[in-house]
Amino acid sequence: MEKVDTTERLARLRELMKKHKVDIYIIPSEDSHSSEYIAPCDARREYITGFTGSAGCAVVTHEKAALATDGRYFNQATKQLDANWLLLKQGLQDVPTWQEWSADQSEGEKVVGVDPTVISAPDARKLAEKIKKRGGQELLAVEENLVDQIWGEGRPPRPSEPVKVLAKQFAGKDVKTKLDELRKDLEKKKSSGFVVSMLDEIAWLFNLRGNDIPYNPVFFSYASVTPTTATLYVDESKLSSECQTYLAENGVSVRPYERIFEDTQVLSESLAVANGDGQPEAKIKKFLVSNKTSWALKRSLGGDTKVDELRSPIGDAKAVKNETELEGMRQCHIRDGAALIEYFSWLEDQLNAKKVELDEVTAADKLEEMRSKHKHFVGLSFDTISSTGANAAVIHYKPERGSCSIIDPEAIYLCDSGAQYLDGTTDTTRTLHFGEPTELEIKAYTLVLKGHIALDVAIFPKGTTGFALDTLARQFLWEEGLDYRHGTGHGVGSYLNVHEGPIGIGTRIQYSEVPLASGNVISNEPGYYEDGNFGIRIENIIMVKEAETKHRFGDKPYLGFEHVTMVPYCRKLIDESLLTKREKNWLNEYHADVHAKTKDYFKENELAMKWLERETVPF
Amino acid sequence: MEKVDTTERLARLRELMKKHKVDIYIIPSEDSHSSEYIAPCDARREYITGFTGSAGCAVVTHEKAALATDGRYFNQATKQLDANWLLLKQGLQDVPTWQEWSADQSEGEKVVGVDPTVISAPDARKLAEKIKKRGGQELLAVEENLVDQIWGEGRPPRPSEPVKVLAKQFAGKDVKTKLDELRKDLEKKKSSGFVVSMLDEIAWLFNLRGNDIPYNPVFFSYASVTPTTATLYVDESKLSSECQTYLAENGVSVRPYERIFEDTQVLSESLAVANGDGQPEAKIKKFLVSNKTSWALKRSLGGDTKVDELRSPIGDAKAVKNETELEGMRQCHIRDGAALIEYFSWLEDQLNAKKVELDEVTAADKLEEMRSKHKHFVGLSFDTISSTGANAAVIHYKPERGSCSIIDPEAIYLCDSGAQYLDGTTDTTRTLHFGEPTELEIKAYTLVLKGHIALDVAIFPKGTTGFALDTLARQFLWEEGLDYRHGTGHGVGSYLNVHEGPIGIGTRIQYSEVPLASGNVISNEPGYYEDGNFGIRIENIIMVKEAETKHRFGDKPYLGFEHVTMVPYCRKLIDESLLTKREKNWLNEYHADVHAKTKDYFKENELAMKWLERETVPF
Repeated sequence: MEKVDTTERLARLRELMKKHKVDIYIIPSEDSHSSEYIAPCDARREYITGFTGSAGCAVVTHEKAALATDGRYFNQATKQLDANWLLLKQGLQDVPTWQEWSADQSEGEKVVGVDPTVISAPDARKLAEKIKKRGGQELLAVEENLVDQIWGEGRPPRPSEPVKVLAKQFAGKDVKTKLDELRKDLEKKKSSGFVVSMLDEIAWLFNLRGNDIPYNPVFFSYASVTPTTATLYVDESKLSSECQTYLAENGVSVRPYERIFEDTQVLSESLAVANGDGQPEAKIKKFLVSNKTSWALKRSLGGDTKVDELRSPIGDAKAVKNETELEGMRQCHIRDGAALIEYFSWLEDQLNAKKVELDEVTAADKLEEMRSKHKHFVGLSFDTISSTGANAAVIHYKPERGSCSIIDPEAIYLCDSGAQYLDGTTDTTRTLHFGEPTELEIKAYTLVLKGHIALDVAIFPKGTTGFALDTLARQFLWEEGLDYRHGTGHGVGSYLNVHEGPIGIGTRIQYSEVPLASGNVISNEPGYYEDGNFGIRIENIIMVKEAETKHRFGDKPYLGFEHVTMVPYCRKLIDESLLTKREKNWLNEYHADVHAKTKDYFKENELAMKWLERETVPF
Repeated sequence: MEKVDTTERLARLRELMKKHKVDIYIIPSEDSHSSEYIAPCDARREYITGFTGSAGCAVVTHEKAALATDGRYFNQATKQLDANWLLLKQGLQDVPTWQEWSADQSEGEKVVGVDPTVISAPDARKLAEKIKKRGGQELLAVEENLVDQIWGEGRPPRPSEPVKVLAKQFAGKDVKTKLDELRKDLEKKKSSGFVVSMLDEIAWLFNLRGNDIPYNPVFFSYASVTPTTATLYVDESKLSSECQTYLAENGVSVRPYERIFEDTQVLSESLAVANGDGQPEAKIKKFLVSNKTSWALKRSLGGDTKVDELRSPIGDAKAVKNETELEGMRQCHIRDGAALIEYFSWLEDQLNAKKVELDEVTAADKLEEMRSKHKHFVGLSFDTISSTGANAAVIHYKPERGSCSIIDPEAIYLCDSGAQYLDGTTDTTRTLHFGEPTELEIKAYTLVLKGHIALDVAIFPKGTTGFALDTLARQFLWEEGLDYRHGTGHGVGSYLNVHEGPIGIGTRIQYSEVPLASGNVISNEPGYYEDGNFGIRIENIIMVKEAETKHRFGDKPYLGFEHVTMVPYCRKLIDESLLTKREKNWLNEYHADVHAKTKDYFKENELAMKWLERETVPF
């Protein structure tokens, strides 16, 4: 990894800070839409620090510069940061958070500034409170982004890929219905309108897909919906005439992307007139924005007196898939499973029979090629994690072309990968061994598998959250003093982002806020990792559905899961003696299902067919 | 249940409200110490409404009067309230909370008032916000309690039972050490001192016990601890000369109970001087109070600018029992188990062999008599729930002397009871059947037992909360579409309150805030209830301890439980075919343990000995 010399960039930034009377300038990683993945033009934090990791925040004062990042990136940041930078290792004891560090610097009425379009309103509020407590001045919203000004011509242009209509056969619900339902919700919440800033929410609401951000079929945009209007803020040149007609037919006006701030200001002023003066707060029909909305957008809508922040009702609606989306998920996972079976059988043959030397990226390329032949394939849903031996212990491992490892046939191989199809998004992890696994590897794999099965078969009353179910997946590891340091499940979009909220299964407290509901699609991926040695993860996508139970206490539905991922588990990593009868039955039924649903893809592929037969023989 | 005519009381209250310029007056159930059980002199809400249930809040306007209570008490409140009262059924859809109802009444700049000594500071703050939003005036702290003024001479005097020193042989840690540890914590938190208002926290801190509140060995008091002082606010006449010497030796000053408000005001003023002016907020060494402290106490300490609210550090320390307390718990549960075994064998003999007719209270009296013979017995720890048949389905059933049911030998009998011993507090539930249980009763009992065992054997990493473990106890019921509407476990005091925070096992979000720690003592009590038919609950007390695991991932301790309750389960309610081998082994080991530890108590009681032998034969 190369170091970038940031001396000149920092000097120029500090000049601009002086000009704007800013003592401390914050450069978050986020774009204006709280996107998990960002476009290159939004990589301001990377540009100013030289650090390329996905998470982190830079803070620059006139004397110092600090980068804060988490445990995944301590090594990488140490290698990439030059001597101008102090590394704040977040999560270590006695290391301040970047908010605390910024507040410490602000002591003595210093001014902390930030571009309000790249920090969420709640984050800005919390930061401002910390600064105030330490004796700094009010947090300053610096309207121009100072890093963009230094970056100048070197900054990549904002992507402008075409936007396409997602046919009803895939979306399952038309835009008019979605808008109607949203408006009903707004009426119930006594709100004047909802301003949408999350890109996947906009794509879902209008049944449109784009290609502005790697792996995420979204496009740069904002939207606002009121009882009588729906407006999409997007660069019109991205819209084909089909798209334009479609939007017009659905009563959606189109306005330029940049106009959102002027228009929200107008909306805000209209609200003042409609409400009149002197009304108690409860009587004002406020605007709603999601709690991920930028500080800038909230400010332009008039701030707290005119805006309520909440968990996005579109995010909630999007997470409950309709029947078409659920069926799409089933179908695309069968095709995706066929591609993975083809890949694993090919890989085993290359390594064991043909003794070919293969590196992690070359192998992953082959997997992509196999996936891409399938119907409705659009692209990958994230960077494939193709990892051998000790690399498998790195939870967010990203093999680099050229410098990655050769796959060792005598070590664990962990493959976490997924794709975008028109009918759904996939995300599957299988851990394999092409040689002789160690006793500990077999033990760990079997315990992870037992947790994976326990979650799959769980039945729970409506109202139960992913927080409450998480323990089921960990219990067998815990009993041996083992655990894993990541969540057990994340929501998955329908031909949208592979990670989506608001649901999840894990120990994060926000997962205790949203009950799982029939129609949710979520991953089931416990694991175990031994640093420098090996890693194990087993991941299926599961869908929440009503369960048939003998009783129905409390007169409410009981829910369970349906698994859609169709790839065999690794037999040689399973210690049968640790499985209960019920677990063996579950495995046999699962393998029979995989066999039945994928076998027709291998009529002309003897290698894959043999592999499938061998791996799905009953226990 | 009798109705009280509240017409005159309400008329007099409304006169006083006029005098104090109050439009809406709130009468909470709580005393000034957020006690779960209250003394008769604090039962103001009961006096004004005529409703005797333990939970509820009364709100009186000049035209209306409302009582809010929860599902446990809908029937009772309907029977007890006279026509002056509107019942707000809390938890039902479209029924406002009492806070919402009060806020609705406040519209148009009305004044809502409350005695600030009987509402916690956080509750007052939330109420004030709701009122403000609806257009009412600032919440008014009415210094005199208006109900007390009407009640007059009829009001029982405040209890003044003697306070005793709890010997080191039971407390395990001396007052000096407890004060030192608290002061270290205060220093770490950069605080000027802690003002204590919870009665059990004061009893624990000073190793004193009283008898002012039924079942809870506490005494009316406040306390304040600063780096150099420790002051106990208590009616000095309660203190024997032994007590007074003991306190003096430990550097604890004694001041009259009522002086707390004057003294905290003085403390508050001294803080202003010590801090000087114009300091940023972070530099002020504030006072700490627990988040259960009354609004009055926080006001007298100077409010938000001088006081930080937090979960009480004394509550946290108290929940982690020392070795002496843990050993006391083991020992008192053996004696308590012997009493329960004697009782159940006697009851079976009375009902089945002797065909005696026994009502629920008479039986419970016999149990108390049997307990009271044992060493270190002080009294019961709560009203015994002795319930037959359908009564067992009423989770908080309280049999009334004279009017309670005759125990039906052909129905389920549920007994939830406990006692205070000098060396610990017990709480045990066993569900029995003296005749032929139904298939459903057996099925439900077995599923509850499976959950009870799953929680007992759980192993989990340090940092895990009772919220995360709750699912283990419910999983087998859920699978059949069954569930129970209460928590799975509550903290238990050491010769203190049978319910204590901050830990718990259940779905309440606060149980996700405090990890279980080695030394915690908590109940394990899943159940199942079928309205009008039967109820099942199985409860042991379990203690958190370090577990021996093969591995130790994350280099942190893994924890598990030790059970101390020593009473056999009901064999005829267990369907052996639903148990795994491991569950049967667990039961056999448990029963062997119960047998070994209690048998010596029955050398002269053949009936009990036979019953014990029969109930502990291995599966």
